[in-house]
Amino acid sequence: MSTLRRLILQPEEADSTVASQPVHFTVRSGRVKHARRLATRAYRQKTGEFLAEGPQSVREALRASAAIEVFATAAVTERYTDLLALSDAIDWHIVDDEVVTEISDSVSPQGVVARCRSVVQAMAPGSLSVQGFAVICVDIRDPGNAGAVIRCADAAGASAVIMAGDSVDALNPKTVRASVGSIFHIPIFVERDTAALVSLLRADGVQVLAADGQGDLGLFDTELDLLPATAWMMGNEAWGLPPQTRLLADQVVAVPIFGQAESLNLATAAAVCMYASARVQSQR
Amino acid sequence: MSTLRRLILQPEEADSTVASQPVHFTVRSGRVKHARRLATRAYRQKTGEFLAEGPQSVREALRASAAIEVFATAAVTERYTDLLALSDAIDWHIVDDEVVTEISDSVSPQGVVARCRSVVQAMAPGSLSVQGFAVICVDIRDPGNAGAVIRCADAAGASAVIMAGDSVDALNPKTVRASVGSIFHIPIFVERDTAALVSLLRADGVQVLAADGQGDLGLFDTELDLLPATAWMMGNEAWGLPPQTRLLADQVVAVPIFGQAESLNLATAAAVCMYASARVQSQR
Repeated sequence: MSTLRRLILQPEEADSTVASQPVHFTVRSGRVKHARRLATRAYRQKTGEFLAEGPQSVREALRASAAIEVFATAAVTERYTDLLALSDAIDWHIVDDEVVTEISDSVSPQGVVARCRSVVQAMAPGSLSVQGFAVICVDIRDPGNAGAVIRCADAAGASAVIMAGDSVDALNPKTVRASVGSIFHIPIFVERDTAALVSLLRADGVQVLAADGQGDLGLFDTELDLLPATAWMMGNEAWGLPPQTRLLADQVVAVPIFGQAESLNLATAAAVCMYASARVQSQR
Repeated sequence: MSTLRRLILQPEEADSTVASQPVHFTVRSGRVKHARRLATRAYRQKTGEFLAEGPQSVREALRASAAIEVFATAAVTERYTDLLALSDAIDWHIVDDEVVTEISDSVSPQGVVARCRSVVQAMAPGSLSVQGFAVICVDIRDPGNAGAVIRCADAAGASAVIMAGDSVDALNPKTVRASVGSIFHIPIFVERDTAALVSLLRADGVQVLAADGQGDLGLFDTELDLLPATAWMMGNEAWGLPPQTRLLADQVVAVPIFGQAESLNLATAAAVCMYASARVQSQR
């Protein structure tokens, strides 16, 4: 227990003034209130910070050196000794369930939350080099879908995920959770101006493909060349890509529908497109 | 309005005994209580019925002649005239929002719910002929994932979806909603005994592939032949396929992970596997 007791001693910031006693952060502690406010996009943008919760996300945050401090229950601290081992350069606060619940966005908090430095970069010339393929989320609104796309982009070996237009914040707690750690594995960019983004990519020699059920070309058509560096544009869950955005692309490509379904959901469509690129590019 | 008034007249079953007045079902009406109970798996199994809600699901239920009766608000009735036109052989009850909310499983009910005959069949010799490919969900627990797999199976042109082992009920309201109408497009089978199911399929000359991250063969390996009739087995969201189930398969196949993600989620993995089959089989 002595190691754990040492970990919760934070005399310079503690609520207690008795430095020789273990210090317990409460829901009224400044650090806890600060972490709690990171649930809002405005505060995340102001501070350049966000939260990752659950053992798996926190582990990836620690491995990526993105974590600033960790709040964990004593139970999690004792159970996930690998997390504690990874966190020797930062503060690990042992807190009550009540504090984790206060900070957590989840309905069933998993006992550990890391405050992290933002992993999202602004898009700028030279900031992104697409070797194989990347995915652009245009006006994506559902945080869970965004997280699923990030997880899949990581799995498929994408160079980056770019959140374009009015897309949900990639650092939204639900997105981070749905990414299952992948938010820390793959470069995430943000660019509100989709047209400028497409120009930048095309100037770099990247072909831009708009995924759309009404596409001129089928994903498996032999005319479609997936060998060149490619950026896949995926549209909003309900209405897809706006016509003016489709016009920006080199090609509009449809995932073929062989049955009676009207469409695929966003994450599965993105998965099929990205793995089509990954298949072709891994066999060259 | 006269057509609408006629539609809500159900004198033989109505709560009101004044047949010349429009009849309003209330949350205490027998039919509404019956519909409400279909939220439970036990009552669905007892009655062989389930609910489809929202304009799109109800439309597909009506087209598939699976709907027995429809409960809709006046607003939805006036807005979706195509639905009313499709329902001329069955009862269309105009009800208050309160009734739809009572029946609906959704947090934001869309004003229309159809009571439907089950579209799930028990697996039996000769009941399923896999021409191209099918997907088997083994011990899948999340209703939303099951619905996403059904939607994707429909899109990819699968012959059937088979809910095996301890999988969630395909007629769960969340599954039906996540399938976005596809539950009415594609044959759905259920078989608790996964080993018996695999034997049946293999006796029919269907190759059975277990999708598993630890697979011996990669999905894009040239040794993998996806031309023959194929059944893809997808495992539980958290722990995948049990070892004894993997052993039943002809091959254990991994969707390759090119990045640092530990795995894909169930629906995206199923999408990538099914579209790999669809690509190869559509090009023969």
